[in-house]
Amino acid sequence: MVPAVERLLLGPGPSPVAPRVQRAMSAPILSHLDPALMSILDRVRLQLRDAFGGADDAFACAVSGTGTAGMEAAVANVTRSGRRATVVVNGYFGDRLSQMFGRYGATVSRVEREWGRAADPDALDRALRARGADVVAMVHAETSTGVLNPVAELCAVAQRHGALTVVDAVTSLGAHAVATASWGCDVCYSCTQKGLGAPSGLAPIVFSRRAQDASATSGAAATFYFDLQLLKNYWIDRKYHHTISAPLIYALSESLDVVSEEGFEPRWRRHRGNHLRFARGLGELGLGLLPPDEERLWSLNAVVVPEGVDEARVRQRFLDERSIEIGAGLGPLAGRIWRVGLMGSGSTADNVDRLLDAYRSVLRPA
Amino acid sequence: MVPAVERLLLGPGPSPVAPRVQRAMSAPILSHLDPALMSILDRVRLQLRDAFGGADDAFACAVSGTGTAGMEAAVANVTRSGRRATVVVNGYFGDRLSQMFGRYGATVSRVEREWGRAADPDALDRALRARGADVVAMVHAETSTGVLNPVAELCAVAQRHGALTVVDAVTSLGAHAVATASWGCDVCYSCTQKGLGAPSGLAPIVFSRRAQDASATSGAAATFYFDLQLLKNYWIDRKYHHTISAPLIYALSESLDVVSEEGFEPRWRRHRGNHLRFARGLGELGLGLLPPDEERLWSLNAVVVPEGVDEARVRQRFLDERSIEIGAGLGPLAGRIWRVGLMGSGSTADNVDRLLDAYRSVLRPA
Repeated sequence: MVPAVERLLLGPGPSPVAPRVQRAMSAPILSHLDPALMSILDRVRLQLRDAFGGADDAFACAVSGTGTAGMEAAVANVTRSGRRATVVVNGYFGDRLSQMFGRYGATVSRVEREWGRAADPDALDRALRARGADVVAMVHAETSTGVLNPVAELCAVAQRHGALTVVDAVTSLGAHAVATASWGCDVCYSCTQKGLGAPSGLAPIVFSRRAQDASATSGAAATFYFDLQLLKNYWIDRKYHHTISAPLIYALSESLDVVSEEGFEPRWRRHRGNHLRFARGLGELGLGLLPPDEERLWSLNAVVVPEGVDEARVRQRFLDERSIEIGAGLGPLAGRIWRVGLMGSGSTADNVDRLLDAYRSVLRPA
Repeated sequence: MVPAVERLLLGPGPSPVAPRVQRAMSAPILSHLDPALMSILDRVRLQLRDAFGGADDAFACAVSGTGTAGMEAAVANVTRSGRRATVVVNGYFGDRLSQMFGRYGATVSRVEREWGRAADPDALDRALRARGADVVAMVHAETSTGVLNPVAELCAVAQRHGALTVVDAVTSLGAHAVATASWGCDVCYSCTQKGLGAPSGLAPIVFSRRAQDASATSGAAATFYFDLQLLKNYWIDRKYHHTISAPLIYALSESLDVVSEEGFEPRWRRHRGNHLRFARGLGELGLGLLPPDEERLWSLNAVVVPEGVDEARVRQRFLDERSIEIGAGLGPLAGRIWRVGLMGSGSTADNVDRLLDAYRSVLRPA
């Protein structure tokens, strides 16, 4: 059974999948150990390392699960019972990260800032001076608030205190610059269904040499499915671990080819340009974005719901009248913002204009 | 990038994907919270409960990962630190189950039998009399040895001792009868890429009422991604947990439609018939299967490598000369067996004949 409807996906993800990427899933299915599949995996591994801006000795792969699986793989491989984790929390996904560290047995400290504002490196520095940490985790692009956190500065602070660093790049990879090696980031994960423009189901992840060494000398992780050592055995040494999904790999590989054909910098500029076009158009309609100018994501726009407007009804009308999907707010921002994604192949001037037209029509005084 | 080769997939999985199932992945991508996707999920959930032979109050869904993710979801939701797990081990996947219980903090006892023979319910009974268990886990279809374990009897023994039961049906669902409610099985998981004939990437799983209650009153699981409570929140209450992969759901849904159009019993008979045809043909070639007659799987045939034959060279020739994939032995059976899968749409008389022809030609004295 397949759906009878078609949507323009302009919510917080999944983003639209280009026809050539979707078509790649029709290629003949190969097994997880077929030499022809392994050579595609070799290529994907290097393309991902490059996309993450990883060093030559970093290990990148794609975990067989969604972005949340990437988060769990990151947390599970740097956490052992009793380790001290400091998590920068200024949104739903920072909070989720801190929950995961807790589940995996870490002693968790949170460095909080209000939802809708960027995290403060000085606050992290003060927290680490006060109580230290074995690992510091943060979200680059906070999908729940549309905020871009200053991860280069945050990682630098964590490094000065000798902590491993984990960065969530779920909503930034492919849309904003991600540069793990120059940030000093040890583990960074993302998803396939936002900035990269592939369907969901895989979670790209990269581990620095330092993270690999720390994991290798820490005893077995609590997880088998996400265990870094077993993933390396599979991706590098071709030793069976799980049956990777060939169609998802084909789609990811194709989407990475699309990214490199466009080029990273032009792609980031495209995302920036369409975000600015959208923000400007919103302003003309008397609408605004939640974060201040200089703290905004290009990939995810948190549009403030005007006083007296029923946000759910607006989303429903977008869906019913124009088949455009946009997202609702999460947690304390439920009812207060719409989340509008301009990601991957969905970040186009035409889509911005369709959105603005929809807002204009739906919010027009009756 | 997509592969330039095409294989006939007759290894231990993935199995061939029928064109209509693969085509389903081309349908328009919907988000994980789209009402149209949620209604497909509602249908899939009931079809899976039915496929597992679950009771009306059982909860079935598909975890976003491969069969190994299903195993981890099962283990993580019934284990808390210090619980006693007894695992029936007569192959690679029983061993993997026991490793996972250990990683999740259980005190693990193993009831072992030699690889290639079915597990013995009396041995389980003796073990449970000696030391009891909170949970008993077993593999229905041991993919590493081609053995069908007597799970109805094993579950009955475990139930008499008051333990929860976990059954791995990765290589049986869709090929052999799976009847969790009548077995008294509390958690059963599988994969999409074997008996069901969809691509890999999702892991169907079912939880009895008893397993759901036990999990709800045990405090949070160590895992967030596989947490049963969060999965129920998503599948039933439509609360965001992760971004499920729409193309994989379409393919699974389509494959479940194929299964119900064929009917469970005719499908099982087809698998049995083609297995018997293959076993008979092997006999005529002087080849045999590892397990005794009455302990054999229909979906996975463990063909004994004759003395003096280089098993890897045979597999390579199957691949190079006929583009047929068969599998190697795992662990202690490496080099001693080939693993030949006749699963899902791959279980046909024609494929059996192609296999026998390949064996005849490759093993012919030069």
